[in-house]
Amino acid sequence: MKKIYLLTLLLLISLSNIAQTDDEKMLRDIFDAALTEGQAYENLRQLCKDIGPRLSGSEGADKAVQWGKKVLSEIADTVWLQPVMVPHWVRGDKETAEIRLSDGTVIPTKICALGSSVGTEAGGITGEVVEVFGIEELEALGEAKLKDKIVFYNRPMEPRLISTFAAYSGCVDQRSSGASTAAPFGAKAVLVRSMNLRQDDLPHTGVQRYKKDVKKIPTAAISTNGARLLSKKLREDPKLQVHIEMSCKNFPDKESHNVVADIIGSEFPDEIILVGGHLDSWDLGEGAHDDGAGTVHSIEVLYLLKKMGIRPKRTIRCVLYMNEENGPNGAIEYAKQAKLQKWQHTLALESDRGGFTPRGFSIDGVEGVQEETLKQIEKWEELFKPYDIHYFDKGFGGVDIGKLKDQNIPLVGFVPDSQRYFDHHHASNDLFEAVNKRELELGAAAITSLIYLIDKYGLEIKN
Amino acid sequence: MKKIYLLTLLLLISLSNIAQTDDEKMLRDIFDAALTEGQAYENLRQLCKDIGPRLSGSEGADKAVQWGKKVLSEIADTVWLQPVMVPHWVRGDKETAEIRLSDGTVIPTKICALGSSVGTEAGGITGEVVEVFGIEELEALGEAKLKDKIVFYNRPMEPRLISTFAAYSGCVDQRSSGASTAAPFGAKAVLVRSMNLRQDDLPHTGVQRYKKDVKKIPTAAISTNGARLLSKKLREDPKLQVHIEMSCKNFPDKESHNVVADIIGSEFPDEIILVGGHLDSWDLGEGAHDDGAGTVHSIEVLYLLKKMGIRPKRTIRCVLYMNEENGPNGAIEYAKQAKLQKWQHTLALESDRGGFTPRGFSIDGVEGVQEETLKQIEKWEELFKPYDIHYFDKGFGGVDIGKLKDQNIPLVGFVPDSQRYFDHHHASNDLFEAVNKRELELGAAAITSLIYLIDKYGLEIKN
Repeated sequence: MKKIYLLTLLLLISLSNIAQTDDEKMLRDIFDAALTEGQAYENLRQLCKDIGPRLSGSEGADKAVQWGKKVLSEIADTVWLQPVMVPHWVRGDKETAEIRLSDGTVIPTKICALGSSVGTEAGGITGEVVEVFGIEELEALGEAKLKDKIVFYNRPMEPRLISTFAAYSGCVDQRSSGASTAAPFGAKAVLVRSMNLRQDDLPHTGVQRYKKDVKKIPTAAISTNGARLLSKKLREDPKLQVHIEMSCKNFPDKESHNVVADIIGSEFPDEIILVGGHLDSWDLGEGAHDDGAGTVHSIEVLYLLKKMGIRPKRTIRCVLYMNEENGPNGAIEYAKQAKLQKWQHTLALESDRGGFTPRGFSIDGVEGVQEETLKQIEKWEELFKPYDIHYFDKGFGGVDIGKLKDQNIPLVGFVPDSQRYFDHHHASNDLFEAVNKRELELGAAAITSLIYLIDKYGLEIKN
Repeated sequence: MKKIYLLTLLLLISLSNIAQTDDEKMLRDIFDAALTEGQAYENLRQLCKDIGPRLSGSEGADKAVQWGKKVLSEIADTVWLQPVMVPHWVRGDKETAEIRLSDGTVIPTKICALGSSVGTEAGGITGEVVEVFGIEELEALGEAKLKDKIVFYNRPMEPRLISTFAAYSGCVDQRSSGASTAAPFGAKAVLVRSMNLRQDDLPHTGVQRYKKDVKKIPTAAISTNGARLLSKKLREDPKLQVHIEMSCKNFPDKESHNVVADIIGSEFPDEIILVGGHLDSWDLGEGAHDDGAGTVHSIEVLYLLKKMGIRPKRTIRCVLYMNEENGPNGAIEYAKQAKLQKWQHTLALESDRGGFTPRGFSIDGVEGVQEETLKQIEKWEELFKPYDIHYFDKGFGGVDIGKLKDQNIPLVGFVPDSQRYFDHHHASNDLFEAVNKRELELGAAAITSLIYLIDKYGLEIKN
């Protein structure tokens, strides 16, 4: 690409002329501020590089709470920590696997334990492998085929789905309930293909849950390249064995905190507009997209309002949730307190889909609330067009704000471009370097703009 | 992010049910094929990794022509090479710069010669530096301030512009005509801030043009970090000197080729729908986004039609242009032949903005043609919505197809997300690894879908 002078000229002119209405002008100002005076990217650097991974119960999580409190104290009118008990699971030092072929060949393969998995016995577990492509296929095999075996779930994410979140949701049952489904049939361990649309060597962790009264067997993710190799080798050598050793361990729950910060509304201080992301991350990588981006987006809303001298009518509350990943205990606690203390939420918005170029917003809520909220928000669609933000539809709000749904609160999920999200999700490459500064800033501007409009006009939802 | 079962369920159902009309079904099939059976990513790997950089006149460019011919021969009905004379400029081994402070401190800084720049004399050039922020400021300074100086153009790209191409266009005059504007005032060399919105250490090359009868002085790009440092040091130490040594050189023009491949139309073989990108790249990096992506997009249109058994009514022509970067001689030659041989082009589409997530299309053409083309194409906007493709507007088509504009041909530019493009543009990090497979494939599907619709329905433009 070379010269496009005419286009430039038109766009440079548009910078000054596009602002025909007050709202258009304000959105332009918000985007300008985010792109030239924002602190989201620097905040993300601090969170990723000065603190790093911050799994619930870890030292990193404690540091992140203190960091969030400190950063918000310089912006908000009030900041407080909301106590919450969280799981404390530690990966441990030992985490290896190898494929042992019948001819004696040994092929090491990278795995990572899934969150809350028990470790193996010392010296590891060895067993033949049964490959399945889903829970139903597993159940059809039954105990005869599964006893003493290592179950290998290998259903890939569906590449034809344009939203990678939809592809994720169509696979993640293998990870979240794979072990507890396999254990009653006598399986001794579980391997799950990583939730990743790419072919690469990185195992992606994530939460799994043991069902009550079911034997806890070790469960780990294998990279997509590892899964492809194991599947191929199994076709050639069905009697091959896999050896797994993991020293991960669950400890007693620990106290941690949600960080809650308010800019108090000038007219309706009791009406709360919540914007949040989660402060905890998995222990691999730096939790940059998941959910460092949502954390700094949420802080940035308050920062930009303050920086621009906008005093909101309603209280704008930033909530940095703890323990979304293997909880969501922070969300449950916040929702519980919201009910107990009769907090009035005008709306809650969550950013937990990464720091990519904004595409729009998905609107959630109980029946009636969702439809009415969408109707009111999509009226502003035209205001977002100059920023290439076009998506306003019903959809998922977010895991953390989801716990407020039954309190009839309108919910909004921030929707950035999803194509690269699962390349990094829960893996060692979810690093600060994977986040583009402009993409992050445009997201912050989009969210701030919507919060601004909701504050200015309110929402009339019959709860 | 965790479970979003409901969303998944809805989207999985939609995979089968969404295709309510033939066109909806066909677009779904095109996207499915691109995402599951495409060869764009593998082609890009070959172009970047097996061939690498391919500046006009280089061995890489020759190899790329042969590669393009070979790949297209396996798909198209006819493939031929269109001869074109191209510049032959070589960077050479020596390319260094250092900032020499008045106190004797020497700070090495990375530069890269701009395409077609002359080298320095052996041993390099040393001089005091005058920082300017644009051509007008330079001209106002005049010979008294500029004689024997090194001019340092340091106007940054405008971050507030949402389209980074617009920001680029607002700066690139410093690079393209900076040397020839400074030379008449006695300046002895030029440094230009890299066209990059990020702060990093990579110098970005690109074309510059010497005006006739103006002294040819050496000109190079300095990285954005280098530019920041130099600017800071100049404020502290206005008498500092910069030393530049470069051994780049211009050689006589060489013969090269555009690669032209047709799938012959079944009903209207003489009506040509052109889809193209450029095969040449700068010598830094691998030309992955610029324009490996456009090259493999264009090939993929033919590949997908063939793979899906679609016999187009009109001739679908893929043109892999040579010498866009420091030309565009390939484009000029193709347009000349088009006129001479009275080729009838229904439309020409270019992909030269990288392999990022598709956003839409910008429609170009002479007055009347542009408006009418947009009117006809935007009727299909709804068909693209399921793929998050939303942008249909007037705008730039492309450098190569632009040469067909005065033949009254409707032009279309493929518009992917632009936020990351200039992080890589003309720099050593424009590598295969910077392209996401899905983003690339979605682009190919979007372009193929539009070409399919244009072929099916034709365009009624009064030329």
